Amino acid sequence: MAEFFPDVPKIRYGGPTSKNPLEFKHYNPDEVVAGKTMRDHLRFSVVYWHTFTNPLSDPFGVGTAVRPWDDGTKTVENAQRRVRAAFEFFEKLGVPYYAFHDRDVAPEGASLKETNAILDQVVKVLKEEQQRTGVKLLWGTANLFSNPRYMHGAATSPHLDSFAFAAAQVKKAMEVTLELGGEGYTFWGGREGYSTLLNTDLKRELDHLGRFLHMAVDYKKSIGFTGQFYIEPKPKEPTKHQYDSDAAACLNFLRQYNLLDHFKLNLETNHATLAGHEMMHEMVTAIAAGALGSIDANTGDPLLGWDTDQFPTSVYLTAQCMGCILDMGGFTTGGVNFDAKVRRESFEPIDLFYAHIGGMDAFARGLKIADALRRDGRLSQFLAQRYRSWDSDLGRKIEAGQTGFADLETYILAKGDVAPMESGRQELLENIVNEFI
Amino acid sequence: MAEFFPDVPKIRYGGPTSKNPLEFKHYNPDEVVAGKTMRDHLRFSVVYWHTFTNPLSDPFGVGTAVRPWDDGTKTVENAQRRVRAAFEFFEKLGVPYYAFHDRDVAPEGASLKETNAILDQVVKVLKEEQQRTGVKLLWGTANLFSNPRYMHGAATSPHLDSFAFAAAQVKKAMEVTLELGGEGYTFWGGREGYSTLLNTDLKRELDHLGRFLHMAVDYKKSIGFTGQFYIEPKPKEPTKHQYDSDAAACLNFLRQYNLLDHFKLNLETNHATLAGHEMMHEMVTAIAAGALGSIDANTGDPLLGWDTDQFPTSVYLTAQCMGCILDMGGFTTGGVNFDAKVRRESFEPIDLFYAHIGGMDAFARGLKIADALRRDGRLSQFLAQRYRSWDSDLGRKIEAGQTGFADLETYILAKGDVAPMESGRQELLENIVNEFI
Amino acid sequence: MAEFFPDVPKIRYGGPTSKNPLEFKHYNPDEVVAGKTMRDHLRFSVVYWHTFTNPLSDPFGVGTAVRPWDDGTKTVENAQRRVRAAFEFFEKLGVPYYAFHDRDVAPEGASLKETNAILDQVVKVLKEEQQRTGVKLLWGTANLFSNPRYMHGAATSPHLDSFAFAAAQVKKAMEVTLELGGEGYTFWGGREGYSTLLNTDLKRELDHLGRFLHMAVDYKKSIGFTGQFYIEPKPKEPTKHQYDSDAAACLNFLRQYNLLDHFKLNLETNHATLAGHEMMHEMVTAIAAGALGSIDANTGDPLLGWDTDQFPTSVYLTAQCMGCILDMGGFTTGGVNFDAKVRRESFEPIDLFYAHIGGMDAFARGLKIADALRRDGRLSQFLAQRYRSWDSDLGRKIEAGQTGFADLETYILAKGDVAPMESGRQELLENIVNEFI
Amino acid sequence: MAEFFPDVPKIRYGGPTSKNPLEFKHYNPDEVVAGKTMRDHLRFSVVYWHTFTNPLSDPFGVGTAVRPWDDGTKTVENAQRRVRAAFEFFEKLGVPYYAFHDRDVAPEGASLKETNAILDQVVKVLKEEQQRTGVKLLWGTANLFSNPRYMHGAATSPHLDSFAFAAAQVKKAMEVTLELGGEGYTFWGGREGYSTLLNTDLKRELDHLGRFLHMAVDYKKSIGFTGQFYIEPKPKEPTKHQYDSDAAACLNFLRQYNLLDHFKLNLETNHATLAGHEMMHEMVTAIAAGALGSIDANTGDPLLGWDTDQFPTSVYLTAQCMGCILDMGGFTTGGVNFDAKVRRESFEPIDLFYAHIGGMDAFARGLKIADALRRDGRLSQFLAQRYRSWDSDLGRKIEAGQTGFADLETYILAKGDVAPMESGRQELLENIVNEFI
Repeated sequence: MAEFFPDVPKIRYGGPTSKNPLEFKHYNPDEVVAGKTMRDHLRFSVVYWHTFTNPLSDPFGVGTAVRPWDDGTKTVENAQRRVRAAFEFFEKLGVPYYAFHDRDVAPEGASLKETNAILDQVVKVLKEEQQRTGVKLLWGTANLFSNPRYMHGAATSPHLDSFAFAAAQVKKAMEVTLELGGEGYTFWGGREGYSTLLNTDLKRELDHLGRFLHMAVDYKKSIGFTGQFYIEPKPKEPTKHQYDSDAAACLNFLRQYNLLDHFKLNLETNHATLAGHEMMHEMVTAIAAGALGSIDANTGDPLLGWDTDQFPTSVYLTAQCMGCILDMGGFTTGGVNFDAKVRRESFEPIDLFYAHIGGMDAFARGLKIADALRRDGRLSQFLAQRYRSWDSDLGRKIEAGQTGFADLETYILAKGDVAPMESGRQELLENIVNEFI
Repeated sequence: MAEFFPDVPKIRYGGPTSKNPLEFKHYNPDEVVAGKTMRDHLRFSVVYWHTFTNPLSDPFGVGTAVRPWDDGTKTVENAQRRVRAAFEFFEKLGVPYYAFHDRDVAPEGASLKETNAILDQVVKVLKEEQQRTGVKLLWGTANLFSNPRYMHGAATSPHLDSFAFAAAQVKKAMEVTLELGGEGYTFWGGREGYSTLLNTDLKRELDHLGRFLHMAVDYKKSIGFTGQFYIEPKPKEPTKHQYDSDAAACLNFLRQYNLLDHFKLNLETNHATLAGHEMMHEMVTAIAAGALGSIDANTGDPLLGWDTDQFPTSVYLTAQCMGCILDMGGFTTGGVNFDAKVRRESFEPIDLFYAHIGGMDAFARGLKIADALRRDGRLSQFLAQRYRSWDSDLGRKIEAGQTGFADLETYILAKGDVAPMESGRQELLENIVNEFI
Repeated sequence: MAEFFPDVPKIRYGGPTSKNPLEFKHYNPDEVVAGKTMRDHLRFSVVYWHTFTNPLSDPFGVGTAVRPWDDGTKTVENAQRRVRAAFEFFEKLGVPYYAFHDRDVAPEGASLKETNAILDQVVKVLKEEQQRTGVKLLWGTANLFSNPRYMHGAATSPHLDSFAFAAAQVKKAMEVTLELGGEGYTFWGGREGYSTLLNTDLKRELDHLGRFLHMAVDYKKSIGFTGQFYIEPKPKEPTKHQYDSDAAACLNFLRQYNLLDHFKLNLETNHATLAGHEMMHEMVTAIAAGALGSIDANTGDPLLGWDTDQFPTSVYLTAQCMGCILDMGGFTTGGVNFDAKVRRESFEPIDLFYAHIGGMDAFARGLKIADALRRDGRLSQFLAQRYRSWDSDLGRKIEAGQTGFADLETYILAKGDVAPMESGRQELLENIVNEFI
Repeated sequence: MAEFFPDVPKIRYGGPTSKNPLEFKHYNPDEVVAGKTMRDHLRFSVVYWHTFTNPLSDPFGVGTAVRPWDDGTKTVENAQRRVRAAFEFFEKLGVPYYAFHDRDVAPEGASLKETNAILDQVVKVLKEEQQRTGVKLLWGTANLFSNPRYMHGAATSPHLDSFAFAAAQVKKAMEVTLELGGEGYTFWGGREGYSTLLNTDLKRELDHLGRFLHMAVDYKKSIGFTGQFYIEPKPKEPTKHQYDSDAAACLNFLRQYNLLDHFKLNLETNHATLAGHEMMHEMVTAIAAGALGSIDANTGDPLLGWDTDQFPTSVYLTAQCMGCILDMGGFTTGGVNFDAKVRRESFEPIDLFYAHIGGMDAFARGLKIADALRRDGRLSQFLAQRYRSWDSDLGRKIEAGQTGFADLETYILAKGDVAPMESGRQELLENIVNEFI
């Protein structure tokens, strides 16, 4: 096998004092934290699209990426060679998972039939490489947004043919995911939204999306695919307004169309902040609904209004993420999936390593911080103390639905006024968190 | 009766060429548009809080409002005189409705009991004035956010007493609303949210909110109040994150807690834009769920990140709002409620008239524009044409849930590719709208 | 000559009641408004990049544009044919001006020398077409942002070669602009900014930019180019932070580097709003510094955080723009340049006409509204009245710098307190504006 | 002397392992970092307004602050007692500085004369307490925004009397600052901006502001005050648009009115982010102009659009701030001034300690991180390496203004194209920073 990254050794754990940019400072896969190895907690995944097919172009400039294994052609051979490079990368980096869209791994042919055949040729190599390396597929998905046939949407297109093509494409992507032993399948509605309400029948489009997802559920059953379905919120970009704008919008949609049993959410920090929420808000919201499945690990720039998909390095952020994951009992099917891309100016292959190493270390630190905060116990004790009045008899009656306004009026008229308030202590709690950063 | 606005006559319709700032240029209450008088379409309402008790302070300065009828005291007499001034204003302006919080119309006493007694004394005058003038109560509500007892929330407070006090307060506010013949009752969760997730059990707080609203539903039934319940989304301010952040979040909550049959949404432009949505998006979303009840008419400044609650003057905005209202068949219980305040620099009583006249005229124009666009028909024809493929046999089968991925794959493999896309024509449609502005 | 838009006639003025989407409703070039024809007031210009070379791709999808005259090759012939199509468009639309970057009109060759030779071949056709049609060049510019050689900046690159290449490219672009009789030359610093301050020496980069612009001034003189130099503010995108972030930042830079005599600003609505300013703020700021040169006519979406470059249709916006232009005495070298693109879903050639017609009509209405407001006089009278205290003796002394704190203290101690404030009447003024919309 | 914080000891350094919330974990005043004590590097200052007179109200609720020493009256005695409490706080916290507005420390009287006399009575106590404790005044300032007389602006008011009153007020505030040995004086233009451009003559208002500041410079000289003048940027709030919107806008203004020699900037993180800039951008911009004077230490919430003035706890932020301060050679007259307030829910006196301790520790860590990064040297070496082409002969010629476009064209034509680009390595650099967090 050719070496695509000849100067890069297998990335090893060097510990916090290492100055070697090609060593982990914190991610030590076999180290046990909170009863489980870091590998099993974090379930890191690399995305194929940003790391192996993104040319690092932007709306104002062409691609800059230097990828020596890529000859720039749309041939099957090039696509297969790219797979080899990718798995060398996964292996050297030491991630257990990857994720892809159908159109990342293989080029389109002249017809859907031909496209599917090309995809099969590449999937063959993916399978070989999975077997060779032990790297697994966290989830598969279909790209229903790049081709002009989806300009007005896929499942929500006003044109039935776009819907039908999307159906055929998802069908194939699900089959391929099954074949590769994928542990999940993700629906991100890249063009499911609108550019203007002037030309849009929102209700009808949402009804179609509901139908589409029910068909996916049916087809999943029919082929015996048991992986988890995810739906991924994003508020805007590429459309002016995406239907799956945030966790609450997705949950509302899933409830309305009786799909909540079949889907969990795949949350992403950059999408959360574009929607005006902290990632932690989205995670807690999803967990409260029993619907958090997986996370796309990245970060946006809070001062920029588009999806910058930067590698996450803030340990405040990663500690919050991993705190939520620990609170929900850990991932089951999901993982920490780096939906992140190097900057257009970080165009060399080695930058891919630096970026992922930094992100993995940041998440490893986040895990250790979150665990330490939980073991410390001050935050959870504060919370228990803060809500203690609800653990009274009256609190339990209210929570059980055994009382009403009249009783509560009687209670408060008798008491005169509320008991004195207690400080929320936000600053103290932030200081406690800082003890662990 | 004393004249509180001695220099202001009854505001009359002067027509589009009038230069009189105290005449309507477009709002002609008895003029029939789309089969109904403008009065019945628009159902204008003035809010008591901004127009009669807002001192026009801001976080950087004390109040500036000059209100000659207000002696600045917290006495019942002052509150009652304020009611007289308010109804003179409503009458001269010619609005059929008003809306209030309990704490706007009457001051608090030393205990809840005393507060309730004070409220009753003011409600007596409200009732008199309603009868004298024929002005009606669009909806009532309780202020559960200003008093320090609600600093951590009301129905979502970690302190049970705050919940209980809120329950007692809402109970009374509902009784008062019933007594005044109010056509609805609104829940805006002023402090239902959090300042930091570090001290917050989001799930438990939402459960409590669900219980609270069920109690309200129960109590409503028990007293025979048949008005509409509204819930009002807002994403942030005063809290960092309000639970009822936007239409979708409210709908999700209502579905989760089995409350959707009992509540409709009261939407506000400024809240929509703070949440990153156009008002039209929120309206269409609510209509698609059969849950649009009423609107708070105002506008924010898209460049400012707080609730500026400005009077709406953009006829693009008002045409969109009224287009949605016409599309849903008109208001039933709701109306166009001016939750808007004059600028701190517009501190004279006469500015209240200028502001409302401008807002009413803007909505009247919006109604006429929306009606003209509907009669013109080009927008709706475009829409019908755009979705025509869904009216085919296959379209109907998909919509009816009678087909699946395999069939659609067969269809598209046979067809080869999708039929050519058609332009979305956004620019043309915007030009058509501009013909009517 | 071939007809590239065979179904499109010369666009004529049909008047406000026309329903023909290919007629102007408001732009009547020879109609005199405020002493000048609309043509001379508005000086409309079409941009080559968006209208003739933008493929309508976005970060999530490939181009959708259907341009039958474009064979997709990078040949000189294709570039020349595109010029013919462009001038047919300009002529049918009836705009007096266009604008271009060097790389829009002609492809790059294997070396700068070859590239320049290619450019010359296309410029020859531009010149022919200018002579044939009478359409003139509003301004030229160089694309210093698309090529990877500018990934770290052009004049502000840490790599001297990028600076040097940019110098050579601007030199040629200025020569070409001169040859084509261009009335100006614009500097938009597409990559002049940074992605992270961690790798950036901001001071040194700004010094280099200062040097670069001085070289441009020197070279302009040396070749006898007398057109106006413009600098165009934009806060972000493609870089995280552009140096020329808004009007004030540009003016500060121009003052610091002694360049203010040589540059005026070219302002754009979408750039203004991305920077957190209204377009009118930027215009008034530039006018106050005597530095408003030209405007890029477009609009952003206030809810989206990237440069959407939409066609402007809000007559509130266009009335503000044209009000500022009338206030400054009209354009001299500048014009209303449509730096706007059709939506990706509006991919047909005819959409280019709809879009520009709508934008031109919106600006024509803006001009008429602004003129009517000025003739009405109520706004200017209000302003004069509001500042009248400054026309007193004391006011003149203060303005002339003939008094100080001690005198003013004496004045105010004697007076006791300020004279009563007067309302700012924002709502009334907004209503007056609405009379003219 | 009465003890106002009887349960709070002098705050001491407990070291990083301390769990005592009333000990510093990182701020060790006498510890030497980079050749200077932490005390001298950081020059911490507490603000009087947020910490001693902010009632913790917000636009939706009344104040919650519990301040036992404050009887709620506007008497001189209450103001004087508040001073005693403040200095006990300063002393126990161990900060060397404080800052105040005239109206924070003393109430207004019935006339300016009376107000000044009241102020003198309080200043007497401030002086006593300064002498007793050794705590010094970092800077004084005048509140020109709360009183209705400033509703339309102070120095930029359309009403001359507001200007005159502001002049008298600043005169007195400067005198008082001088008397108290203040090391600076700050101008924050609280109402210097506009609510709408419809009623605003921006140019005339800016001219007045220029005159006002020149009068301040003259008066400073006349009284022999040698402290530093600061101007503080903020983009919006309370006005829709403040004139001093960001560092660049301030610098542009100062240059235009020939004031740059007399003013430095006082920068604040929350103001920076509201303006769309990182704090570090503003600092680097000011340093590049030789105009960074002092910083207001706080943080905003990037998802909220108003001035939340939160205590800074992110060590990423504080490391950036202190890195800039080290780069500029340390503060001279300025310091780290906590323009921050506890949350409305953190209403107890003890929360003031928690908040400041956390902020001071965060800045102490920031200093140590910044120093370690500088000593490590990898970042600065990368920077030197990245710009090395500018240290060539040609680079020096360009920087010295000794070459032009023609020479550079010759250079690049000869070279053919630019030398290969080098990666910007943003991800690697972020990882290096993370080694020190």
